This record gives sequence, C-alpha cells and structure tokens, in this order.
Amino acid sequence: MERIEQRACFGGWQEVYRHHSSALDCDMTFAIYLPPQAGHGPVPVLYWLSGLTCSEQNFITKAGAQRYAAEHGIAIVCPDTSPRGDGVADADGYDLGKGAGFYVDATQAPWAAHYRMHDYVVRELPALVEANFPVTDARAISGHSMGGHGALVAALRNPGRYRSVSAFAPIVAPSQVPWGEKAFAAYLGDEREAWARYDATALVSGELRERLPLLVDQGTADEFLSQQLRPELLHVACETHGHPLTLRMQPGHDHSYYFIASFIGEHVAHHAAALHR
Amino acid sequence: MERIEQRACFGGWQEVYRHHSSALDCDMTFAIYLPPQAGHGPVPVLYWLSGLTCSEQNFITKAGAQRYAAEHGIAIVCPDTSPRGDGVADADGYDLGKGAGFYVDATQAPWAAHYRMHDYVVRELPALVEANFPVTDARAISGHSMGGHGALVAALRNPGRYRSVSAFAPIVAPSQVPWGEKAFAAYLGDEREAWARYDATALVSGELRERLPLLVDQGTADEFLSQQLRPELLHVACETHGHPLTLRMQPGHDHSYYFIASFIGEHVAHHAAALHR
Repeated sequence: MERIEQRACFGGWQEVYRHHSSALDCDMTFAIYLPPQAGHGPVPVLYWLSGLTCSEQNFITKAGAQRYAAEHGIAIVCPDTSPRGDGVADADGYDLGKGAGFYVDATQAPWAAHYRMHDYVVRELPALVEANFPVTDARAISGHSMGGHGALVAALRNPGRYRSVSAFAPIVAPSQVPWGEKAFAAYLGDEREAWARYDATALVSGELRERLPLLVDQGTADEFLSQQLRPELLHVACETHGHPLTLRMQPGHDHSYYFIASFIGEHVAHHAAALHR
Repeated sequence: MERIEQRACFGGWQEVYRHHSSALDCDMTFAIYLPPQAGHGPVPVLYWLSGLTCSEQNFITKAGAQRYAAEHGIAIVCPDTSPRGDGVADADGYDLGKGAGFYVDATQAPWAAHYRMHDYVVRELPALVEANFPVTDARAISGHSMGGHGALVAALRNPGRYRSVSAFAPIVAPSQVPWGEKAFAAYLGDEREAWARYDATALVSGELRERLPLLVDQGTADEFLSQQLRPELLHVACETHGHPLTLRMQPGHDHSYYFIASFIGEHVAHHAAALHR
C-alpha cells in the first residue's frame, strides 16, 4: 500500500492510497480522512460510495464532509467506483464499465474477471483499512446515486456489518430502471433472481436482511428522479414489509454535490450517533 | 446578463451568470451564492478572487463556503481570473494570460486591450451585482494565492470601498517573486513604479492607502511558500509602517483547497462581523 496524497484538513489528514486489490485483481486507489481524534486512539469509519463516473476524488474535494468528520471523530473512507487499469474490461458510455461498477460481483464475461466491487467494498477494503489505520471495526455506510444503491445493498445484504446506513438520491430499484437494467444485464446476466440480490427495493422484502433503518435524502429537482431513482418504489416496499425508512424529499435540490454538501453534515451526525453508541 | 447555473445549496442558491464586461471588452462568467436571508431583504457581499488557472467554479465547488455564508447571511461573488474568449491575448504557461490576470489593469500590448481585471473586480462587477441582486453596498474581499494578492491590493488601493479584507496564501510582494515579475513585466512594462501600485507589500508603505487590518492565513507546508508567497515581506512592511496585520501560519497545510476549506469558516465570520456592523 502506497500513500499518494496527504493534505492537512480541519486538524486531521485527507490521504489517498494505492494498493493491489485481490478481489478486483487490479491496482486501486481509495481516500481516507483521518480526523484529529485518530491521533489519540482508534476511531470508527464511515464508508462513502460515489456515483457514476466518479473516482475517490469527487467526494473528498466537493462534499465538505471533513469538517463534520473532525467534529464527530470519525474517519471517512472513499473507494473508487470500479476496477481500473489497462487490463480491465470497459464499455462505451458512462454507465457501464470503468466508473460504473454498480457495487456488484459480476458473473458474466468479460466483467467477472475484475468487477467484484461488492466483495471489495464490503470485505477487502474494510479489512485493509482496519489493519493499517487507527480505526475500529465500527462501520457505517453511505453514498450517492449509484453509490447510494451500493450503500443500501451493502447494509441490507450484510446483517451486523454496519451500524448505520444512509443514501443521497440512490438508485433504489435498479432492476426496474434503465441504468440498472443495462448494468445488471451486462454484469449479472439475464436471470432476474440474481438482480434482486443487488436491489434495495427487492431486498427489504427478504427475511434475512439487515433491519437497520434507512435514511434517504432526495432532491425534488433531481434530473434523474422520475426515470432512474424512483424513491417511491423503496417507500412502498418499506411500508409493505415494515422496514423503517426516513425518506426526506428536499425541495429544489438537484443531483449535484451542492445537494450532498447541504445535507452531509446531518448524515455524518446520524452515523456518528450510531458509531459512538 | 444570462443565468447559466442555478443550484439549491444550504437553503439558498448557488448561481452562475454570463454577461458582457465593458471593462474587459469580452463576455465573462461569475458565480454568486445567495443565502436564504436574501429572500427576505438585501444582504452584504463577500467578493472572492481565485488563484492561477482557476475560473469562477473552483471556489464554489471546493471551498464549502456556502454553509458559512448561509449561517451569516452574506452573499459570495466569485469572478473569473482573467478575460476570456477567442479574441483575448494568451501566452504559453499557466502563469500569464488566460487564467492569470493578476487583477491588474494592463498597459502593455497585447494585454491592454482586455486585461483590466482590477477595474472589473473593483468597479464594474460590484455595480452589476448591486444593480441586479438583493444585496447591499457593504463589501468585503478575500482570495487565494494570486487572488489573495488581488484582494489585498483591491482593499489597500481603494479606501472605503471594502469593510474588511483577508487572504489565503497570498502573493504578498509580486514585484519581488518570479510569478509577479513575469506577469507585471508583461502587463505593466518595465517601470517598477507601476508595479508598486499592485503590490501589497509596497502599498502598505504608502500614505493614501486603506488602513483596514489584514487577515492572512498561510500554510507552513505550502509548496510555494519560500519562492512565490513570502509572507515575511508583508509582515516586515506592516511592522515598519504600523499597518495592522494578523498573519497566521497554519502548521502542515499546503496550497490546496483543503487548506482554504479548513479556514474559510473563520474568514467568513471575520467578514460577516464587519459587514453586519
């Protein structure tokens, strides 16, 4: 593991590392914000999953989350959004291939060789982080858009692994919207049962799911709201199956980082309360 | 004037406009953050001047200042850093020409035709903003690097025009460092007397200057500290001439937006106190 960036920020350090991922069979970068409290003892970790086209850089440069992480004494880890490198399969378009891993473990050629982002995010990266940084194994997870989908699925599929989960403008029902249908058909094949295991709206109807309450913020002026995000599908599923959901429709907000920046402080506080419990 | 971006942010609006500048004789873009309080009555304005290579976008996407502006009820206006467009002279290198206007009114060919950023920032842009937005004529000014130089010079040269001034990692003595020597020779010619009128360290020795106290933050790990920024030159000039200066050396901080983000809240509070007085 090699440190490639280190910047003082709100009394702590914003760092970026490169390492070889065995889950993805390629080199990966991830970012970690270590708050000032990490200088005195281990701190819990919030994992942040970014959306389509993003790398580990978008959240750390645009969300302004470090201030809140420093206030609450939590680290924030941001992985990249797909495997990377010359040997990794890619596709035309921003919504499949590099930058568009959808946080699934692909089963179909040519994707299965590297696209195992669920395994990477849920298992390999936390193990690496917990072995190499002053952090505890108390974990929370959040994300935006494709990453909001990833965060909800990571939490729902892995009971006990996270203390809290939230999402900004998540793709709540990828099996039912164009972004998800394109990606899941490529990565997972035609069997819809395989898709349901990576679909938050489908997962909340399952018996073995995590029961954590879901905190979701969604802008009402989001340009992807009605075709790709469709939070009402998650709302209905949670109502039907008794899963706790706080869905906040935020007037006037779009899909951008201005939306994330406006509410990330409340999400960090939400996660900090669970992580420090 | 045409609005080209509008995004909800911390209860207010982050907007970007395009207009024709008569000072610069070209089309320009600028950003304005209107806090929630601007919906109920006019608010004072902090002008932010960015550094080399920047546009109006860098500060609004990376500094996280909107939160503080919303807390304190002030607008923030961010101009571009040079004239723009196909008809505008440019040069090789990031430190002269487009993206590197140095906030001077050029007197030399080919620059004099468009490079009048001092006039634009101090006179034309505030007049445009005050005529078209719910703002008062209470003004503050700040900036980073080349923009920190621009902010200090704008305030020192224009007594009574600003209520407060601050800077992050400013080029405090452009006449004495490579960035400034290259730019000033091109824009202002060989006469060093002309340079002194755009040099904060030289201006604090003048009799007709603004007497406002200067607030300057400077990272100790800034990669440009010893060759281009040299805050000790301003410190000595202020000591010699009795100009109030608060120079804060911030341990471990570099020249990046992580540095700005870490302290912009304190600067906004500093300006808000003067603007609401």
